[in-house]
Amino acid sequence: MEFKFKVLCGSPEGTIVEKVTTRRLGDNDVFIETTHSGLCGTDEHFLHRDQALGHEGVGVVKHIGSSVTSVKVGDRVGFGFIRRVCGRCDNCLSDADAVYPIPDGYDSAYAAPLLCAGASVWACLTNNGIRPSDRVGVVGIGGLGHLAIKLAAALGYNVVAFSGSERKREEALEFGASEFYPFPSIQGGVRIKPIKHLLLWGSSNVDYASLLDLVDTNGVIYHISVTLEPTPIPLVPFGQKGIRIQGCFITSRRNLQELLEFAARHDIKPTIMNFPLTKDGLEEAFEKLRAGGIRYRAVLEHQAL
Amino acid sequence: MEFKFKVLCGSPEGTIVEKVTTRRLGDNDVFIETTHSGLCGTDEHFLHRDQALGHEGVGVVKHIGSSVTSVKVGDRVGFGFIRRVCGRCDNCLSDADAVYPIPDGYDSAYAAPLLCAGASVWACLTNNGIRPSDRVGVVGIGGLGHLAIKLAAALGYNVVAFSGSERKREEALEFGASEFYPFPSIQGGVRIKPIKHLLLWGSSNVDYASLLDLVDTNGVIYHISVTLEPTPIPLVPFGQKGIRIQGCFITSRRNLQELLEFAARHDIKPTIMNFPLTKDGLEEAFEKLRAGGIRYRAVLEHQAL
Repeated sequence: MEFKFKVLCGSPEGTIVEKVTTRRLGDNDVFIETTHSGLCGTDEHFLHRDQALGHEGVGVVKHIGSSVTSVKVGDRVGFGFIRRVCGRCDNCLSDADAVYPIPDGYDSAYAAPLLCAGASVWACLTNNGIRPSDRVGVVGIGGLGHLAIKLAAALGYNVVAFSGSERKREEALEFGASEFYPFPSIQGGVRIKPIKHLLLWGSSNVDYASLLDLVDTNGVIYHISVTLEPTPIPLVPFGQKGIRIQGCFITSRRNLQELLEFAARHDIKPTIMNFPLTKDGLEEAFEKLRAGGIRYRAVLEHQAL
Repeated sequence: MEFKFKVLCGSPEGTIVEKVTTRRLGDNDVFIETTHSGLCGTDEHFLHRDQALGHEGVGVVKHIGSSVTSVKVGDRVGFGFIRRVCGRCDNCLSDADAVYPIPDGYDSAYAAPLLCAGASVWACLTNNGIRPSDRVGVVGIGGLGHLAIKLAAALGYNVVAFSGSERKREEALEFGASEFYPFPSIQGGVRIKPIKHLLLWGSSNVDYASLLDLVDTNGVIYHISVTLEPTPIPLVPFGQKGIRIQGCFITSRRNLQELLEFAARHDIKPTIMNFPLTKDGLEEAFEKLRAGGIRYRAVLEHQAL
C-alpha cells in the first residue's frame, strides 16, 4: 500500500517548505496522522536540511502493516527522537517498534514534549540512583529544565532551580523547586548547600570551574547540549572531589513508556504554547523560539478543517 | 611524651634534606617506625616544599597514645595518602584512625604501593558496578596501570591493556591482560571491541576525541592525573553515547582495608624496585623515576644497621 502525505521540511536556504512524500507501508510499519508536534531548539539545526521538522510527534494510527500487533488503527501514539525513526524522519510513517501508546485521558498536546525533552530529563532522573533525600539541581529553566523541575519534584527529590532569569523564580517554585538561585551570577554572600545531581541543560558556555563548589563530593553533572566545541574541564579538582560528568541523551523504549505512564498517573503537564501545525504556525513558533519567548515548550497542533 | 625523629623532606631549592622533627604523642596518635615507603611521580611535586617525601608508608607501631585501642605496639601498619595524615605529613606520627593493619604474611614492601597507587586503582575497580563480563581497559602501564591489570584480572574482569611502549606487551599479558594494543598509535586496521570501563592514568595529554570509538555505549572513562590545565572534552558526542567521565581519587578506609586483605588472600604483588630508605636511596629512586626506568614502583626500604 502506498501513501502520499504532506510534510513540513527544512531546505538548504533555511526556509520551511511543504512537500508531498510518497512511501510504501512495510509489514512492520504504521501510518500515523500527526496531530501534535513539539518543537525545540535542535530543530533549528534541521532547518537547513531536507528533513522533516518537529521531532516530538503524537498522532493517531491510520493504517498498520501486516505483521504489526503492538498497536491498532485508531490508537494514539507518540514517536520520538530515536534512531529508528530519525534520519528517515517523515513524521508520519514509522516502524511499529518505535511508537509509544499514549495513556488514555492524557492530552496529546502534553504528551508531545515528553517524547524528546521529557525523555532526556526522565532518563537522567530515573537511571542514576538518585535518592529521595538528594539535592537535585536544575540549571536553566526552559523546555527541558521546567520539565525536570516538575518531574523531579514528583519523584520526591529535593529540587534546587538555577536560572539567569530572576523572573522565573516564582514559576520555578510553583513547578516544585524548593530553592531558586540566580545563575551564573550567584551573589557572593550566598552559600548554597552542595548539589548531589546537577542537570545542566543547553548551557553550553557554562564555566565548569565555577561548578566545583556547587556540586557535592561524589556528585554528578549531567549535561545535554548541542555545542560542538570541546568544553574545557579542569579534571583534577573534579576528580579529587569524585564528581562524575555524564551525558544524558540516551533512553530506552521501556524508560519512555514509563515516563508517559508516570506523567498520566501524576497528572504532570508540560507548560506549553500552542501553534497551528501549518507552515505559518511553524514559522511563528520558530520566531518566538529564537526570541526566547516560549514558556516553556512550543507544541504544533493540527486544526480540524 | 615527645619524640625526635629523622625525616627526608623537600626544600625550596628542590634538593632532599634530612631533618630532625620533634613531636608530641597525642592521646589518639601512634608513633610508627617507617620500614618501607613507596615513591610515585606526585612526590616530585613535594620536592620543592618543606614536606616529607614518600606517601605510601608502611612501618611498625612503636608507641601508642593513651586512648588508642585499634592497634598495639609491634603491629605492622600502613599509612596512606589521606587527608588526616597528609599536610602534617611527617611519615612517622599518625592519627590512629588513619592507619591500616597489614595482613600477616604479606610483605611490607608489597603493601606500601597499595596505600596510594593501589587504593586509587581499587576504588575505581570495586566501587563502580563493574561486572565480570565487562571489558576493562587500562591505558598506561606504570605504577598504577600495572596494579590495575593485576587487580582487575584477579577480580575476574576482561582486561585490555594499552601502552605507548610495545616492550610492555609481554609483561601486560603476564600481569593478566587478555589483549594488548599500542596507544595512542593504534594501527588503522585494528578494530578493537569497545571497552566498557577505561582507566586512564596520568596520561594528561590524551586527546579525548580519540577515545570516543574506543569506549562502549554507556561506558565510563576514569581519569587520574595531576594536570592542572583544563582538558578539552567534546561533551556532545560523549553525551550521545552515554559515556561518563569520572575521577577516581577518593577511597574509604574500609575500601583500602579490603584491598590489603584481597591482595594478601590472592597473593597479588606489585612489581617493585627496592632502594634504601636513605637520602642517597631516595635520590637514586627519583633519578630512575625521572628517566622512566622504574618497573613498576619504587619502594624505599629501611636497612637494618
